[in-house]
Amino acid sequence: MKANLLIHTLLLFIVVELSAQSRIIRTGSVPGYLTLKCDFHMHTIFSDGEVWPLVRVDEAVQEGLDVIAITDHIEYQPHREQVSVDHNAAWDLAFEYACRKNILLIHGTEITRKMPPGHFNALFLTDASALTDTSFLEVIRTAVEQGAIIFYNHPGWKGQQPDGVPRLYEVHRQLIRLGWLHGFEIYNYDEFYPDVMQWALDNNLTMFCNSDIHSPVETEYPSRKGKHRPLTLVFASEKNEPSLREALLAHRTLSWFQDTLAGIRELAAPFFTSSIKLEGPYYQDEKYRYFVLKNLTDMPFYLVRKGTGDAPEKINLPENSYVNLKIGKDSGDTVHYQVTNIRVEPDQFLDYEMIFR
Amino acid sequence: MKANLLIHTLLLFIVVELSAQSRIIRTGSVPGYLTLKCDFHMHTIFSDGEVWPLVRVDEAVQEGLDVIAITDHIEYQPHREQVSVDHNAAWDLAFEYACRKNILLIHGTEITRKMPPGHFNALFLTDASALTDTSFLEVIRTAVEQGAIIFYNHPGWKGQQPDGVPRLYEVHRQLIRLGWLHGFEIYNYDEFYPDVMQWALDNNLTMFCNSDIHSPVETEYPSRKGKHRPLTLVFASEKNEPSLREALLAHRTLSWFQDTLAGIRELAAPFFTSSIKLEGPYYQDEKYRYFVLKNLTDMPFYLVRKGTGDAPEKINLPENSYVNLKIGKDSGDTVHYQVTNIRVEPDQFLDYEMIFR
Amino acid sequence: MKANLLIHTLLLFIVVELSAQSRIIRTGSVPGYLTLKCDFHMHTIFSDGEVWPLVRVDEAVQEGLDVIAITDHIEYQPHREQVSVDHNAAWDLAFEYACRKNILLIHGTEITRKMPPGHFNALFLTDASALTDTSFLEVIRTAVEQGAIIFYNHPGWKGQQPDGVPRLYEVHRQLIRLGWLHGFEIYNYDEFYPDVMQWALDNNLTMFCNSDIHSPVETEYPSRKGKHRPLTLVFASEKNEPSLREALLAHRTLSWFQDTLAGIRELAAPFFTSSIKLEGPYYQDEKYRYFVLKNLTDMPFYLVRKGTGDAPEKINLPENSYVNLKIGKDSGDTVHYQVTNIRVEPDQFLDYEMIFR
Amino acid sequence: MKANLLIHTLLLFIVVELSAQSRIIRTGSVPGYLTLKCDFHMHTIFSDGEVWPLVRVDEAVQEGLDVIAITDHIEYQPHREQVSVDHNAAWDLAFEYACRKNILLIHGTEITRKMPPGHFNALFLTDASALTDTSFLEVIRTAVEQGAIIFYNHPGWKGQQPDGVPRLYEVHRQLIRLGWLHGFEIYNYDEFYPDVMQWALDNNLTMFCNSDIHSPVETEYPSRKGKHRPLTLVFASEKNEPSLREALLAHRTLSWFQDTLAGIRELAAPFFTSSIKLEGPYYQDEKYRYFVLKNLTDMPFYLVRKGTGDAPEKINLPENSYVNLKIGKDSGDTVHYQVTNIRVEPDQFLDYEMIFR
Repeated sequence: MKANLLIHTLLLFIVVELSAQSRIIRTGSVPGYLTLKCDFHMHTIFSDGEVWPLVRVDEAVQEGLDVIAITDHIEYQPHREQVSVDHNAAWDLAFEYACRKNILLIHGTEITRKMPPGHFNALFLTDASALTDTSFLEVIRTAVEQGAIIFYNHPGWKGQQPDGVPRLYEVHRQLIRLGWLHGFEIYNYDEFYPDVMQWALDNNLTMFCNSDIHSPVETEYPSRKGKHRPLTLVFASEKNEPSLREALLAHRTLSWFQDTLAGIRELAAPFFTSSIKLEGPYYQDEKYRYFVLKNLTDMPFYLVRKGTGDAPEKINLPENSYVNLKIGKDSGDTVHYQVTNIRVEPDQFLDYEMIFR
Repeated sequence: MKANLLIHTLLLFIVVELSAQSRIIRTGSVPGYLTLKCDFHMHTIFSDGEVWPLVRVDEAVQEGLDVIAITDHIEYQPHREQVSVDHNAAWDLAFEYACRKNILLIHGTEITRKMPPGHFNALFLTDASALTDTSFLEVIRTAVEQGAIIFYNHPGWKGQQPDGVPRLYEVHRQLIRLGWLHGFEIYNYDEFYPDVMQWALDNNLTMFCNSDIHSPVETEYPSRKGKHRPLTLVFASEKNEPSLREALLAHRTLSWFQDTLAGIRELAAPFFTSSIKLEGPYYQDEKYRYFVLKNLTDMPFYLVRKGTGDAPEKINLPENSYVNLKIGKDSGDTVHYQVTNIRVEPDQFLDYEMIFR
Repeated sequence: MKANLLIHTLLLFIVVELSAQSRIIRTGSVPGYLTLKCDFHMHTIFSDGEVWPLVRVDEAVQEGLDVIAITDHIEYQPHREQVSVDHNAAWDLAFEYACRKNILLIHGTEITRKMPPGHFNALFLTDASALTDTSFLEVIRTAVEQGAIIFYNHPGWKGQQPDGVPRLYEVHRQLIRLGWLHGFEIYNYDEFYPDVMQWALDNNLTMFCNSDIHSPVETEYPSRKGKHRPLTLVFASEKNEPSLREALLAHRTLSWFQDTLAGIRELAAPFFTSSIKLEGPYYQDEKYRYFVLKNLTDMPFYLVRKGTGDAPEKINLPENSYVNLKIGKDSGDTVHYQVTNIRVEPDQFLDYEMIFR
Repeated sequence: MKANLLIHTLLLFIVVELSAQSRIIRTGSVPGYLTLKCDFHMHTIFSDGEVWPLVRVDEAVQEGLDVIAITDHIEYQPHREQVSVDHNAAWDLAFEYACRKNILLIHGTEITRKMPPGHFNALFLTDASALTDTSFLEVIRTAVEQGAIIFYNHPGWKGQQPDGVPRLYEVHRQLIRLGWLHGFEIYNYDEFYPDVMQWALDNNLTMFCNSDIHSPVETEYPSRKGKHRPLTLVFASEKNEPSLREALLAHRTLSWFQDTLAGIRELAAPFFTSSIKLEGPYYQDEKYRYFVLKNLTDMPFYLVRKGTGDAPEKINLPENSYVNLKIGKDSGDTVHYQVTNIRVEPDQFLDYEMIFR
């Protein structure tokens, strides 16, 4: 019977491999909202990307994302000899397919100008083909009239800023004054721009964190090496276009890249609080009380104690793990930590008070 | 700044590697109870094992277990030339250490006789050294008087049953009549005994599923190959000895080995129900309604449809994954599935009605 | 200094991740020849595939392949509304790029007819656009006149043989008689056709083993799960077109799919012999001599002893591993094994005499 | 037939899991010598370790090592209440077992004194029990008279040097003058001591790199995270005690820890040269010649160009991989690189001239 069971089990296993399962991504949350996992910047063969639009949906399904935007360049089609120039084609081809797969596919494009002003993504378009005017401001105006949300892409990318220093030019300030610029990419592909995070804080605009992938996603972020693509986490009431739009206009995002999270304190704090769970004390001896601290999510957290006290100086919580903590009995109940992989300002980590009681 | 961030993050990462984190094991549950992850059978150098007792605690911590029992042989000490014969030593050495690590270490032993009667584990002892009488029944009586829970180990092991066929001898029937036998190992190390599962059902006794490890656990179940040791899941009110004892006497266990779960229907059904989540429909087209089925746990589930209908014939749900399901609109709302890796009888899978509404 | 070293090392590591390294695939060999790792069947957006042609080259580079053929359908272009119909475009776009990457890109196509005759790949074309005649035989004649090597694709695929049984029709026999058919796919995507292996043996034609991928390769054969795409191993004097052509016409191929190797005994035997290494005896005791058996390759080998004798009944050699073997001193020096994952006929494993001396 | 093949293959796979295979570790070599993979420092329950001696052999087998020394403390037996004090027991129990497994088990011990002099390993003993004299120098004299090779352990360990700075005291100088000290651990567990590397160079003594493990090896260096234990690579004529001894006395070692290699230039240079292979040019265009650079080993190598030139500035060669290199045609044939993870002095990397011809 033993052998039979094994055959049985193994045959089923074969079938598993042929189905299309999606990974559940576990993250913290913000009370009252869903946490939508989003990537708002990627390319297909309709500009300089290397995949057919449906591949972007399949990749999102496999990774367990909620929302993607295909944002092919309006001004750049290196494959135009073989592929028709149609700025709406990617969305037209993939939208219905995405609906069936539970992926919210946002109609977008990348407006691609020399510096300044540089590159901008426009989301929630109705007709990308209307954005071909030679005047940059006219194009932005048209997008805004379509209801677009617009953000400034990779401001520190050496392709447009050879010294790698992001700069706000007059045209950007003008866009902000006009209310035509809604956010910035503080992270693009593999680059973090702390200065741009500060711009978003100063101008009360939305932070974005996107992949900008051109190749198949596994080429850029191989899961076999434990990599994940950068994601914009959006806190929305529901998983649909109006809720997403409302959330982006309200700046309710956190940026998740590598093992770091970045965003405003008002979101980062409840997000972190919901990610962990402190339990105990489960035991006491003469000197110590013992507690369990759990990380319920797929993100690691690194905590460093502020000040002195008989509590661990460093607590490292890999994804989906827990640690046993011993706290001195003569120590107070409250210990101050910094979460050193959550940035609430470019050079400021999230503070967290842990109460051992 | 980018490079600085990376150095910063990586240095923290180094620290992570040096701390002792435990994996969170996600499973289903049974309403009203905790799900304790337990292994009630393992050895140390105090019998024929190869590790110091504390290693068993450290292994349990790393794997995220709740309860272990070290069950060295009363009658067999191949290392006696170098290691003192002390049937309580393993427990004495490791108990306090285990408390601090949040591991409930049960005081146990393995009573080790030739067939019949074979090998028996006794749990919840007060003094294992009292179990050295030559009369097997006297030893069991003594254990029972100490409050022990006793189960019959690996009844189909070829070391004691050369043909691999488990058999109940008169002495076993006698133990059952006397109320001195509380359960059976239906799985030991890498062997499943379907006949023994039937014994437990017929006699209303408790099913156990244990590792019986002698070497370091990673040697036997290498995590780098995705293996996990066999576990007895116990549904107890609290994580302490009295609750555990009550749960075992009430037969509230499920056996988890390889990718299979086995146990009584009354526990398996709510356990599975709590493991998954059906959401939707998130979309509809002319012919179909689309749903999401999530597996929230670290166990895979394999579903096969019973009967016909416009619903997926097979649904394979790896751990922590979801699938998108399309259900014919003309199909009824209720679809019958079998969960082919949950056995509620030796040859009977768990039935599950999925209601798409 | 310790910390500095770590930072140093880790920074270098970051750089590693950004470069493009290729995996070295270790296999056995056949004396006098190189072992070329080849995949002769794949698609791009120029027929029903989902990637730009250069992606196929990049994938081959990353996996460490030597030779690929892009074989888009002559008769089927579902993306024709967006992508120009040009049967040579994939090769034209990618050839120079492939040369720089040390990938031999063969100019090919897939001739795609209803059953009979079914689908055929033609390799070594000069102009795929010439193969558009309505007459199948005319198309094949044209290909042959261009110097093509032609093989019959996936003869048991249910898309063309609903019962999954491969059949040789009169048209195929005619092609064979005319010398216009050079081989068969005995394996395609995830299907092995033992009957087709027999056809190749009976007709002295070449066996092929190909992926037929349409999506990015990581979608179909995820390396994180230890999968590899099916490969045709070709034994050629040099890595260039003439040598490859000569080798294919001389039937010098082995098929490597999953953990199985299939092909003619004359190649399989030396290939296996070169894959392993027996060393020793490194030790002797009263009863036994001890040897080391090494598997020097990235393929596993499973050996089962034929007949009796005091040598291991089963030897399992995972990739890049060795086992210690003990051989009875009273046993003869020669032990007969079967390599149960090398098929030299559809139901016949490779025999191997191991000589312990 | 297809399903049958799968069952067949999978059943074989099950068997694989139950056998004991060893990993082949691929490294470079030094002409005229074998590369022995050695760990000369580890503990068992006979001092403060946590495993039975045979576990150390099993671990070495699984990892593919050649040589180990169990070096329990002469002066420290925290388990003495349960485990007999017998300084030869570990070797006595494991030697024959190791022989059968092709592991050369060296009879050793750790002489364990407060600072100064600190801890010393003695290898190639005949009777460790003779090393219990209260006089440190007498103990060393006795060991030397037994033919021991002696090295100074972890000189920068904070347990004996609270500031982490290794120091040579007069007693160490005396040992060197007497010819009673043969080497130093330049790496122990997870600590590299660059100063100690300099001592070895200055005094022409042997460099050692050992694990000093007390727990099961997978606890300290989990293979699922890609870790390997530190190893002393010894270049010996044969795999036996006399050859090993001769090689250690002749200082023919390289230290391999994390992704770094350290040792004298005379060994590191040929070792690296034998680890890589440059092939080509396989292609040329107007501007460039294209070459393949292979890393044939299980160690990564990181190369950084010295000076200018039209050749890659950085070449990163993960284990068992190759890269395609393009070299400017106007560039000379010789390009100077540094191998930045091979240290031939504490702060000096190995230089390497690559000749593209």
